[in-house]
Amino acid sequence: MKVIIINGPNLNFLSERNPDIYGGSSFSDFFQSLKNIFKSIDLDYYQSNIEGELIDKLQQVGFSYDYIILNAGGYTHTSVAIADCVETINSPVLEVHISNIYSREEFRRKSLIAPFCKGAIVGLGLDGYRLALSNIINS
Amino acid sequence: MKVIIINGPNLNFLSERNPDIYGGSSFSDFFQSLKNIFKSIDLDYYQSNIEGELIDKLQQVGFSYDYIILNAGGYTHTSVAIADCVETINSPVLEVHISNIYSREEFRRKSLIAPFCKGAIVGLGLDGYRLALSNIINS
Amino acid sequence: MKVIIINGPNLNFLSERNPDIYGGSSFSDFFQSLKNIFKSIDLDYYQSNIEGELIDKLQQVGFSYDYIILNAGGYTHTSVAIADCVETINSPVLEVHISNIYSREEFRRKSLIAPFCKGAIVGLGLDGYRLALSNIINS
Amino acid sequence: MKVIIINGPNLNFLSERNPDIYGGSSFSDFFQSLKNIFKSIDLDYYQSNIEGELIDKLQQVGFSYDYIILNAGGYTHTSVAIADCVETINSPVLEVHISNIYSREEFRRKSLIAPFCKGAIVGLGLDGYRLALSNIINS
Amino acid sequence: MKVIIINGPNLNFLSERNPDIYGGSSFSDFFQSLKNIFKSIDLDYYQSNIEGELIDKLQQVGFSYDYIILNAGGYTHTSVAIADCVETINSPVLEVHISNIYSREEFRRKSLIAPFCKGAIVGLGLDGYRLALSNIINS
Amino acid sequence: MKVIIINGPNLNFLSERNPDIYGGSSFSDFFQSLKNIFKSIDLDYYQSNIEGELIDKLQQVGFSYDYIILNAGGYTHTSVAIADCVETINSPVLEVHISNIYSREEFRRKSLIAPFCKGAIVGLGLDGYRLALSNIINS
Amino acid sequence: MKVIIINGPNLNFLSERNPDIYGGSSFSDFFQSLKNIFKSIDLDYYQSNIEGELIDKLQQVGFSYDYIILNAGGYTHTSVAIADCVETINSPVLEVHISNIYSREEFRRKSLIAPFCKGAIVGLGLDGYRLALSNIINS
Amino acid sequence: MKVIIINGPNLNFLSERNPDIYGGSSFSDFFQSLKNIFKSIDLDYYQSNIEGELIDKLQQVGFSYDYIILNAGGYTHTSVAIADCVETINSPVLEVHISNIYSREEFRRKSLIAPFCKGAIVGLGLDGYRLALSNIINS
Amino acid sequence: MKVIIINGPNLNFLSERNPDIYGGSSFSDFFQSLKNIFKSIDLDYYQSNIEGELIDKLQQVGFSYDYIILNAGGYTHTSVAIADCVETINSPVLEVHISNIYSREEFRRKSLIAPFCKGAIVGLGLDGYRLALSNIINS
Amino acid sequence: MKVIIINGPNLNFLSERNPDIYGGSSFSDFFQSLKNIFKSIDLDYYQSNIEGELIDKLQQVGFSYDYIILNAGGYTHTSVAIADCVETINSPVLEVHISNIYSREEFRRKSLIAPFCKGAIVGLGLDGYRLALSNIINS
Amino acid sequence: MKVIIINGPNLNFLSERNPDIYGGSSFSDFFQSLKNIFKSIDLDYYQSNIEGELIDKLQQVGFSYDYIILNAGGYTHTSVAIADCVETINSPVLEVHISNIYSREEFRRKSLIAPFCKGAIVGLGLDGYRLALSNIINS
Amino acid sequence: MKVIIINGPNLNFLSERNPDIYGGSSFSDFFQSLKNIFKSIDLDYYQSNIEGELIDKLQQVGFSYDYIILNAGGYTHTSVAIADCVETINSPVLEVHISNIYSREEFRRKSLIAPFCKGAIVGLGLDGYRLALSNIINS
Repeated sequence: MKVIIINGPNLNFLSERNPDIYGGSSFSDFFQSLKNIFKSIDLDYYQSNIEGELIDKLQQVGFSYDYIILNAGGYTHTSVAIADCVETINSPVLEVHISNIYSREEFRRKSLIAPFCKGAIVGLGLDGYRLALSNIINS
Repeated sequence: MKVIIINGPNLNFLSERNPDIYGGSSFSDFFQSLKNIFKSIDLDYYQSNIEGELIDKLQQVGFSYDYIILNAGGYTHTSVAIADCVETINSPVLEVHISNIYSREEFRRKSLIAPFCKGAIVGLGLDGYRLALSNIINS
Repeated sequence: MKVIIINGPNLNFLSERNPDIYGGSSFSDFFQSLKNIFKSIDLDYYQSNIEGELIDKLQQVGFSYDYIILNAGGYTHTSVAIADCVETINSPVLEVHISNIYSREEFRRKSLIAPFCKGAIVGLGLDGYRLALSNIINS
Repeated sequence: MKVIIINGPNLNFLSERNPDIYGGSSFSDFFQSLKNIFKSIDLDYYQSNIEGELIDKLQQVGFSYDYIILNAGGYTHTSVAIADCVETINSPVLEVHISNIYSREEFRRKSLIAPFCKGAIVGLGLDGYRLALSNIINS
Repeated sequence: MKVIIINGPNLNFLSERNPDIYGGSSFSDFFQSLKNIFKSIDLDYYQSNIEGELIDKLQQVGFSYDYIILNAGGYTHTSVAIADCVETINSPVLEVHISNIYSREEFRRKSLIAPFCKGAIVGLGLDGYRLALSNIINS
Repeated sequence: MKVIIINGPNLNFLSERNPDIYGGSSFSDFFQSLKNIFKSIDLDYYQSNIEGELIDKLQQVGFSYDYIILNAGGYTHTSVAIADCVETINSPVLEVHISNIYSREEFRRKSLIAPFCKGAIVGLGLDGYRLALSNIINS
Repeated sequence: MKVIIINGPNLNFLSERNPDIYGGSSFSDFFQSLKNIFKSIDLDYYQSNIEGELIDKLQQVGFSYDYIILNAGGYTHTSVAIADCVETINSPVLEVHISNIYSREEFRRKSLIAPFCKGAIVGLGLDGYRLALSNIINS
Repeated sequence: MKVIIINGPNLNFLSERNPDIYGGSSFSDFFQSLKNIFKSIDLDYYQSNIEGELIDKLQQVGFSYDYIILNAGGYTHTSVAIADCVETINSPVLEVHISNIYSREEFRRKSLIAPFCKGAIVGLGLDGYRLALSNIINS
Repeated sequence: MKVIIINGPNLNFLSERNPDIYGGSSFSDFFQSLKNIFKSIDLDYYQSNIEGELIDKLQQVGFSYDYIILNAGGYTHTSVAIADCVETINSPVLEVHISNIYSREEFRRKSLIAPFCKGAIVGLGLDGYRLALSNIINS
Repeated sequence: MKVIIINGPNLNFLSERNPDIYGGSSFSDFFQSLKNIFKSIDLDYYQSNIEGELIDKLQQVGFSYDYIILNAGGYTHTSVAIADCVETINSPVLEVHISNIYSREEFRRKSLIAPFCKGAIVGLGLDGYRLALSNIINS
Repeated sequence: MKVIIINGPNLNFLSERNPDIYGGSSFSDFFQSLKNIFKSIDLDYYQSNIEGELIDKLQQVGFSYDYIILNAGGYTHTSVAIADCVETINSPVLEVHISNIYSREEFRRKSLIAPFCKGAIVGLGLDGYRLALSNIINS
Repeated sequence: MKVIIINGPNLNFLSERNPDIYGGSSFSDFFQSLKNIFKSIDLDYYQSNIEGELIDKLQQVGFSYDYIILNAGGYTHTSVAIADCVETINSPVLEVHISNIYSREEFRRKSLIAPFCKGAIVGLGLDGYRLALSNIINS
């Protein structure tokens, strides 16, 4: 089973600036730990700050991968173009947000992407990625 | 560790009317399976269609339980009173919604309760309850 | 044919405070007169001021009764939970409002329940209940 | 007792395009059946697609007829001019809508005319006209 | 003179969780102190977390009591049903809020009940109940 | 203890035009009666129809007086400048409104000043000033 | 100088139903009195309840008449089509409203036509027509 | 008959900066010409840029003058305080605006004062003052 | 193939007032040139300023014509009744607007009719009609 | 004459996923067919999913090309930056949308780019590109 | 070159209450330091808490001064009257705000005055006044 | 001291298309002149039309540079992603806009980035960059 985690703008940043969130290690260590837990999944990772590159990647994987885990960061609330892409591709998409976007500013409470996703896990930190994979295994 | 699942209006209904969702069994069977998976958790269950009874229960458990998993159903979008209660109690609350409320009508995209919860799992069916417990164990 | 009239908050009040509306008699007299007019209908009545109890009753009758006549009073405009319930049950629901809610305050002009009902009779006083039953007989 | 049914835009259409709604017959057959049921009522009918002609007719009958049954179709939601007219005339007006306008698009949920009507019957098909007459007889 | 204080959701909570607000004592002590101050008033107390039970109580006392002091808590902002009830009963109602609801979130700044009350005292803590009684005595 | 009552636009008017509200006497009589009741308070009074003069006065007293009782009249709903001033000064401010502003037009239901006040007393007539002083004594 | 008064929906009605407004006479008497006062003006009159007929007339006179006095009645608030017409024609248009539309419902406070008119006279009764003519003479 | 013209902010300016509007003369010349035309009226004039001084003046004349002609300038759209004053005084008020406020920015299309005035003349330049006086004479 | 061009309010006007748009000729010349270009199409034309007459025409042709080209002018933005009609008829409808309605006032950017049309050509002048016919030929 | 077709996000996708729309061929085949039809036009093509690259291209061609045909896809509704660019360049821009964006979700009905374009062709499928070129030839 | 700094409500306050902002000195010291830096400018200062007095001053200097630096404080967001005045005068106006009004409450993010100013400097503290003068010198 | 000027979409354009703004020279000349004025600052420059590349750059410099001067162009009003980035980095950010965005369309009056900036200089042309540097030197 092929799955990819796609992270949007500023999520690269997370690993550089907040090493303690990962237990003193980097996001690649965290990603490696996910691969160790879910050995039956062929797991990929992609990150970009550029809206259109996220679309490029979604188009590229969206017909051959079994699942996509998408954290579109700030584009979640503004990108009709990413929402269009998610609507068109075949692979089911799970939305993950590290912080609880629904407890923040009004404009963060609307996800343009959500209507086209299977579901969402928000506010549970990095553990949200593990839960998404656990749900995929369990489906 | 003491945890309670609290379900709001019409969620009792689910088990009576859609037995196939549970693999031909009832919600009590599903709940039993959760207890079997998470043996280290002392797990309780409560359901009511009455807004004020949900508040009664939240007040009762909200200072002694380690976690509360709350699916407030239709009250999610309208109950300032439940939101007030969740804000006041000490136990961290995880919000679960079986269907993807963010892909439905506009008025369902606003959760009054979300700002006071740790996070939310939406649209992943009954598996959302399992993931919530998995997150609790992992915290 | 089994039919039930379900009245929401403050509609119990009506019979206590406005005896003249019923020709000097109580709502039970009015209800009795409806039973006399529609002898072929097995007609029940339920009233509660509690949102969740109305849901309890709707769940209980919503798969065995042929029709439900629902006047949800003030909950008409605020209850997502009752609307969810009406959406899920099988029995067709007719909405009745004694006064013309569409000639009152802005917030009274929106019925959350209406989208899931067969239709509505508003502003025609107690005669609305008789017309609803007449429509049921005629369907 | 003199009563008139006034139908607005596209309601002429109904009889031409959907003969099966009338039991294989035309609206004039349906109208004739109403006259047969309510023999004590002197019943008239008028239809126009033109907003101003509906006003002309309302002005003409609005001081001599005992009741007006009005289905203003699409003008229901946009015509301040018809609402003004209904407000000014003496004859009480009953609003009828064949389909459930309150389960449709947002802009259809506002009736400019409703505030000046005695009440409304919506979503009960052609039977709404019969119920309106039944209410008139019963008043 | 008969007066009742009616408290809504989560206000029972107050006494259990914040004993210091009452000078180290319970709400019943505070209530007793009010009875001592206003000896000429026959003073009752009621609290419920359930919207419909508040309506039940308002109906029960709303035609025989001289005044009602109402703190509807979170229902203040959402309950058309309680507002309907307050509008219908005869006893004048004074609204009390312990905290200053007008300095909090936007949705807390609208009281559906206020239009039907004589007036309101907000943000003055428990002393608001004493002032309400003082105003009643002075009227 | 030094306290000042500051009245905004049109409140001077009140005393000139509605002498019966004061028991046939003027506002200075009413003010005198307040001084008689609260002998321990050094009580001042100021009124102006000019927004900026109210700010001048608030600045002048806002660091030396123990309490300010403010009825900003029509400026309550429009004056960011008065709200800024109330936010900056040290003396706690109590808002008083003679009529129930929350039962009037929509634009009267928003107080720009309220967020920076300790609390408010509305709709209880001139007695609101007495209650405010009673609360001050009791604090 | 050629001037025409154009009245919209329900304004024909006025003369039939409220004879006392005209001093016991009809609108044609009132119109005759205007002709007597303004003898130097070649004055015409037109009324229709039909939006499109008002447009027909405006097109017909809008390039040859010196002034148009327009009371579009209920179409004032809803007719983009009449506004388009007024914008296109050459003759300056003066808006007259008999009642004070700015003291009525919210939707009556917006005139789609006003932006394309020279000015407006509202709320001064039939005298508004005389003042409009007086302004024309004076220009 | 006593009448006063009250002009609000920036209307003093008009005479200083745009002498040609008055036929090369000042506003006092224009005012003198009005006095000459309406010799039977005892006509006064007042102007201030200060909101509260306009209220002072309205209070001072609002019970003894027969009519007030008010052009509140920019305060028209923002002053609840002036609107309150106009609502309270006895003298009928006519609103005049020199330019067509309804063809300008959205926020200029709402007059807070209009609901309490007899009527309004807008967009007809200085002639609006003459028409207002003509209407007063004619009433 | 039978096709009709239906033009709404003020579009008759166009030909009378702007002869240069047509190369110095009238709309009937322009229409004739369209007939010459599209000889295989049996092309009709209809124009009315009256909303209801446009509905009459749409009903009349809407089941026998192969295509309708509709420029509803100002009714585009306000007519629920025309939108209802377009929704009901069988013939596909192409919307044409001579000017770019999406670069004008906010209220012109919403077309009530668009949701029921195949597509739209806006802002390309009279050439829009030719393109619509070219698309029809090409379909 | 130099013309370029610029397609935005997800429009590359179209050719990969929906070959039948092009008669079993690719977009390059379709583009070739356009070049064959419009031999007098020097026709270019550009596509990118990246908002800023679309701006780069528009800047590059916007002063030397005779026309630009722009389908900005999802950026149509959100990109102030593309709108700014279209506003600044000299080449006239024609907007094309393959589907009828005005019959879809509310947020799709607003084009930020439209105000700066000559016009738009929407909902007519790929034929929209041909019509745009036909209009260019005809201008 | 003549320039004036005009400060609105509560800005007098600043110097009295926050001496440390000025390096332990008063605003007059700060103002003196500005005069020392910009010796070629004839620099004046005015402050008032009264909206109308700010208008008086703007009128007085607005045709003879080379530049006006305006910090209208709380009136920035509410005063149509000041905005009208700024629009009318000849001297260019630079807006200064000491704090970053765009990072505060929603209602502070709208400046009614900004559209008529040359530009604005916000959030840079007292240095904003120096920068404004530097820009004036540099223009 | 290290400072960088970051310009967003279409600002590259400025130098190509409007040479006269720079006194007949290019932006690199202008930039050189800034370096000459502020010799003590180590000044860098970056421009991109791509939202994500601006984020890349902000992340890269946001922890080592002393100040960032940001003109995000059209992304100012739409980019939650850039706002997120500005919120997270350590370097203080000054917003510059060449034109007065607050005197333009409604959607340009909201800056998503402003709440996380130290302040803003708008509408003062290229001189805004110089003033920003002057403020940095002065801080």
